[in-house]
Amino acid sequence: MPRFPATLALPAALLFLLPAATSFQDPPMRGFTTESAKVQREWEAKFRAIPDPARMREAMRRLAARPHHLGSAYGKDNAEWLRAQFESYGWEAKLERFDVLFPTPKVRVLELVAPTRFTAKLAEPILKEDPATSQRSEQLPTYNAYSGEGDVTAPLVYVNYGVPADYEELERRGISVKGAIVIARYGGSWRGIKPKVAYEHGAVGALIYSDPRDDGYAAGETYPNGPFRPKDGVQRGSVLDMPTYPGDPLTPGVGSTPGAKRLAREDAITIMKIPVLPISYSDAQPLLAALTGPVAPPSWRGGLPITYRMGPGAARVHLKLEFDWTQAPLYNVIATLKGSTYPDEWVMRGNHHDGWVNGAEDPISGMVAELEEARALGELVKQGWRPKRTIVYAAWDGEEPSLLGSTEWVEEHMSDMRGKGVFYLNTDGNGRGMLGAAGSHALERFVSEVAGEVRDPETNATVLERARAAMILGGNAEARSRKDMRIEALGSGSDFTPFLQHAGVPTLNIGFGGLDDGGIYHSIYDTFTWYTRFSDTSFVYGRALAQVAGMMVMRVANADLLPAEFGNLAETAGRYMGEVTALRTNTAKEIEELNQRIAERTFALTNDPRNPLATPSAKAPAPHVNFAPIQNAVDSLTRAAERYEKAYGSFAGGAATAAALARVNALLRQADQALLLPGGLPKRPWYQHALYAPGYYTGYGVKTMPGVREAIEQNDWALVDEQVAKLAAALEREGDLVSRAAKLLEDAVKPIP
Amino acid sequence: MPRFPATLALPAALLFLLPAATSFQDPPMRGFTTESAKVQREWEAKFRAIPDPARMREAMRRLAARPHHLGSAYGKDNAEWLRAQFESYGWEAKLERFDVLFPTPKVRVLELVAPTRFTAKLAEPILKEDPATSQRSEQLPTYNAYSGEGDVTAPLVYVNYGVPADYEELERRGISVKGAIVIARYGGSWRGIKPKVAYEHGAVGALIYSDPRDDGYAAGETYPNGPFRPKDGVQRGSVLDMPTYPGDPLTPGVGSTPGAKRLAREDAITIMKIPVLPISYSDAQPLLAALTGPVAPPSWRGGLPITYRMGPGAARVHLKLEFDWTQAPLYNVIATLKGSTYPDEWVMRGNHHDGWVNGAEDPISGMVAELEEARALGELVKQGWRPKRTIVYAAWDGEEPSLLGSTEWVEEHMSDMRGKGVFYLNTDGNGRGMLGAAGSHALERFVSEVAGEVRDPETNATVLERARAAMILGGNAEARSRKDMRIEALGSGSDFTPFLQHAGVPTLNIGFGGLDDGGIYHSIYDTFTWYTRFSDTSFVYGRALAQVAGMMVMRVANADLLPAEFGNLAETAGRYMGEVTALRTNTAKEIEELNQRIAERTFALTNDPRNPLATPSAKAPAPHVNFAPIQNAVDSLTRAAERYEKAYGSFAGGAATAAALARVNALLRQADQALLLPGGLPKRPWYQHALYAPGYYTGYGVKTMPGVREAIEQNDWALVDEQVAKLAAALEREGDLVSRAAKLLEDAVKPIP
Repeated sequence: MPRFPATLALPAALLFLLPAATSFQDPPMRGFTTESAKVQREWEAKFRAIPDPARMREAMRRLAARPHHLGSAYGKDNAEWLRAQFESYGWEAKLERFDVLFPTPKVRVLELVAPTRFTAKLAEPILKEDPATSQRSEQLPTYNAYSGEGDVTAPLVYVNYGVPADYEELERRGISVKGAIVIARYGGSWRGIKPKVAYEHGAVGALIYSDPRDDGYAAGETYPNGPFRPKDGVQRGSVLDMPTYPGDPLTPGVGSTPGAKRLAREDAITIMKIPVLPISYSDAQPLLAALTGPVAPPSWRGGLPITYRMGPGAARVHLKLEFDWTQAPLYNVIATLKGSTYPDEWVMRGNHHDGWVNGAEDPISGMVAELEEARALGELVKQGWRPKRTIVYAAWDGEEPSLLGSTEWVEEHMSDMRGKGVFYLNTDGNGRGMLGAAGSHALERFVSEVAGEVRDPETNATVLERARAAMILGGNAEARSRKDMRIEALGSGSDFTPFLQHAGVPTLNIGFGGLDDGGIYHSIYDTFTWYTRFSDTSFVYGRALAQVAGMMVMRVANADLLPAEFGNLAETAGRYMGEVTALRTNTAKEIEELNQRIAERTFALTNDPRNPLATPSAKAPAPHVNFAPIQNAVDSLTRAAERYEKAYGSFAGGAATAAALARVNALLRQADQALLLPGGLPKRPWYQHALYAPGYYTGYGVKTMPGVREAIEQNDWALVDEQVAKLAAALEREGDLVSRAAKLLEDAVKPIP
Repeated sequence: MPRFPATLALPAALLFLLPAATSFQDPPMRGFTTESAKVQREWEAKFRAIPDPARMREAMRRLAARPHHLGSAYGKDNAEWLRAQFESYGWEAKLERFDVLFPTPKVRVLELVAPTRFTAKLAEPILKEDPATSQRSEQLPTYNAYSGEGDVTAPLVYVNYGVPADYEELERRGISVKGAIVIARYGGSWRGIKPKVAYEHGAVGALIYSDPRDDGYAAGETYPNGPFRPKDGVQRGSVLDMPTYPGDPLTPGVGSTPGAKRLAREDAITIMKIPVLPISYSDAQPLLAALTGPVAPPSWRGGLPITYRMGPGAARVHLKLEFDWTQAPLYNVIATLKGSTYPDEWVMRGNHHDGWVNGAEDPISGMVAELEEARALGELVKQGWRPKRTIVYAAWDGEEPSLLGSTEWVEEHMSDMRGKGVFYLNTDGNGRGMLGAAGSHALERFVSEVAGEVRDPETNATVLERARAAMILGGNAEARSRKDMRIEALGSGSDFTPFLQHAGVPTLNIGFGGLDDGGIYHSIYDTFTWYTRFSDTSFVYGRALAQVAGMMVMRVANADLLPAEFGNLAETAGRYMGEVTALRTNTAKEIEELNQRIAERTFALTNDPRNPLATPSAKAPAPHVNFAPIQNAVDSLTRAAERYEKAYGSFAGGAATAAALARVNALLRQADQALLLPGGLPKRPWYQHALYAPGYYTGYGVKTMPGVREAIEQNDWALVDEQVAKLAAALEREGDLVSRAAKLLEDAVKPIP
């Protein structure tokens, strides 16, 4: 099989414009001396040739053959099979079990009881075109994990995405959800935000439906004719309050081992208080059509052929949910290749193995790449390669309900994480298109270096070139000239969260995507058949992912000096500071404008008496904030980063001893720990990273500098001052750490006098 | 009946915040001496008390009782009734007849012939809830006037709004409309643009449908339950190429009197060359659902429950259209109140009386306000009031097919327009909400002065205050502090066009709206029942319109000095100049970015081989342009305006003689004539105004500084230079005129030595 099968043939005349793979003039390799880079490069070339699309296809066929959610028979079977695979590749592998609270549905009833009657189907039909959909007895029903139980009959109110701003719109129309059941559409936030905000506003139940405008017929042909969500397809998913803490709701902060102390269920603040149920658009349409009340504003309207109204009116809904609150066994697969030189430094890599149903795309498409990396690394070991650091490959269980496998493992192994954790690399499925990367910004340069050495299978450019081109196309002209491609900040939604945001391990999350739209997410239609018809059908992006991820692991494992670079981190922190400063300014302006409009009677004068909108309440003016501590800390970090880079300039020659570099490395691997906030974030001490957290009201979406940013968003000005001080202290610690690392590196690279 | 019946009761506590109607401290009245303003103010107060909502309701009931399109029996009946009304109010009134080409349908066939068969209904059902809809024998069928004839069977292609940018999207996907029938949705441009652009790209037929997202079920409840377009509702309308010239296509530039020389039909460039048919969304859905080919991009998707695709695929459509190319008699109603002092200065006011069917909203809701103004002015005359200038009230026929009545009349009376025309005030229907005003910017101050003295019926604020509040709500903070409310520039779409853009008469177009959404435009559902259930149901905005319009007419008719003010005109010209300068800069940047992306292979690298997008063609770089002539001309105009204002400052005392002021007025009424371009605009000499024209590819939407702006948009750089010179010359002429007027005014107001 050719190494770079260009599925998009380029005109021959253009080929000469491309740098040939063989013409690379030894691109830089962060953390390696000139000498060791040569050796490394040879092993990487061997590595890249091994991952095999045909094997990924067969692994997906096996792992996605039956439903394999947490606690299922096939989930355990998969875990054991994965362990056996790792072992067959020459790794030490074991299952690590935890016992976690995992509710599954006993009773699910949803009915419209007035003004007409309609009983929701709450079921996804079997498709004869896809045999995997027929495994009824093993499929989890459509539900939201960690919903509350309840039996409520109440008026229905449509709340758009169900985020706080939507309730302001309702309030201006005099619509309250107190005592009501809300219906929200998927999107606009992580799903768990919707019932949380509904509950905060007094709702007694919540429905979440997939609007066809987003991933149904409006987006394209529906399954089985095309990749998008059919009318009865339902997005399962967790509604645990993960922005407060993920993992077992009964064991916050500690591993849910057999002997661990557990909260009573009613004391677990992350479990939703009200019943929540996800439904299809075919079940949602009669409910939405029954609403009266004001017509929903244009931005609230979806793709159903109805007039979207806000409610409530005569529509009454009966929602009844009961669950089995099982203690389910969770099986993480943990495989290791012991480090030859630094066995107590761990380079970690994970993807979860549990799915909501058959989960071919989510998560198996990423798992099969990870497996091929493991096989390839095993092959290299057979050929004489040794990792200097210990490599730990994990296949997590229970990610879907609430990052259970990774969170419990990190909590249980916290002292290892803090003492030995060098790097965690996460994937969670894979698609087709452009490389996306997010995580610790001290690894930004490292990402570009690796991405510049892997070929994109469709264009024959490097995956770095393709990702940069997509940024340029998106209007980001800086992507042309900036030395390194920017990586995103991490919010939540996958297993990187406990590593980065709780333990402070330098972390990346990567994957290919952008050309792999579909609507089978968390449904019974996420199958081998779907994936091999509509996504990375030939697994060439699976191979590209294995190449990128494996090279990252190999580089961190064998670097002389860990590949951190702090100039990009300092610059990024400066940008975030600019954003929060601007956020305060804009918030102040918005409040001033609002109050002025109220004083000028703008709302009264423009009000439509037939569709009245209440004048919003005035707000206290926003005070000025002293951002200087952050600015000073960013300046310190910038100077420290420059000093470190200067010392780094003398490193490649190889003058430094391994012992001297080990002292630098001991600091570098604490680069994210230095950024942890003692006591964590307000209202959620589990989240400790000063730069990255999922938004308290966004869920997936990251809030950078979250303490300061969310305090500004909530107009809590006393808290802003407090959080500015904490953030500045964290950045000062980071600057100190980098300064000390620079000093040690200066000493290490000093020519022997 | 109370004078300002607030349908929105304000809390009593707020009332003291409002300036009471009686507390006005003699607000300024442009063009009146202190002395004459007092008299004027008394007559205006009397005037405002007269217009009567109950009479407007009855007039609408009569005028909209039966279909009254151009050439219909009831249309003529209405004209005669209107003439009688004017006469009963004490006006001289007559019908002025023209004979115009007016095609009506003989054959209309639309079928899907492959891959399945479907025959379009092309009919709007009768509603038992609205008896007016049942007048089948008098209703014009659903059609587009001045469509081409044809009998074509061809593949179908969906072209979104059918504007030039949409064809670029199709081209990038390798989709040609050559030999195809296009289907476009209403919106995004005036309807006549769609077949014109389709024809330019080689299409052989065009369909235009009303998407439910815009004015159908997505926007709200459909008629008869609510105001929006029912599934079989169709928007009739003209597709004559009005941006080239409006009016009778056979008599460009001259009135279509019996003896006028007429073009052969095949030589009339404004008649569409291909068959065009408007259809309902119920007829459109099977056609759109039959398309295959690429999924339409998100911005192309409407509100039908289908996957919008671009086509073509197997869908083939048969479209057959034949017309009766009748020479129809057109009856303008022209009523006059002769001026006591300056009978040869005409203050003109018009609204059309023809509708597409029953036309209650369009145009009768504006016509009934005009009628009440006429009655009120007649009452004032009975009480002893005399207009100094001649007032001409027109009820135009044939506006709907192509501004026929007004255009032929203006062309026929061109020497009167140029010699006697002082002002033309247009309305075209009326709704509920905020006052909107557009037109000659030398009248901007005049608009604010009048709008500041009329009460909004829902808020008890002035209509000026409510309009300003809406601007502030829309984010326009300038509306708070700017002395005058900005008025918009006029594009086209109603009878103001021949006055302003062909004859150079100072012009305004006004109306209330913003709170009167609906979807009955140009359908059989635009009826008295619809209007009185959903729009200005109690005709209080009809009264407000009559008050604003009537006061405008009275002020221009009796002003000592015509109310032009040139500071706002100069400032507005400066803004437009800033816009066209920025347009060149941005166009240059966009071309540079495009070419850079092509050179960098950005399009190739981001291309999705499964949904390929061709790389667009490179463009020649945009040259720099010498805008200094415009800048200098704007500066001259600004200085002249300042000089004029200085002289105006001494005017109110009353020192100037009528004869001296008459010399100033003779210049002032030519203020828009000075801005006419000899030879008109490129490709369309009929349009002569240097500042305002409908866009050649937008139709309704205005292009300000159209010669320069459209040349930049079309990257025709030689033409840009040519048009800069012509525009600068026009602005220099305007500056000269204002300077001369200032000099005459200085002389006139000089205290007698």
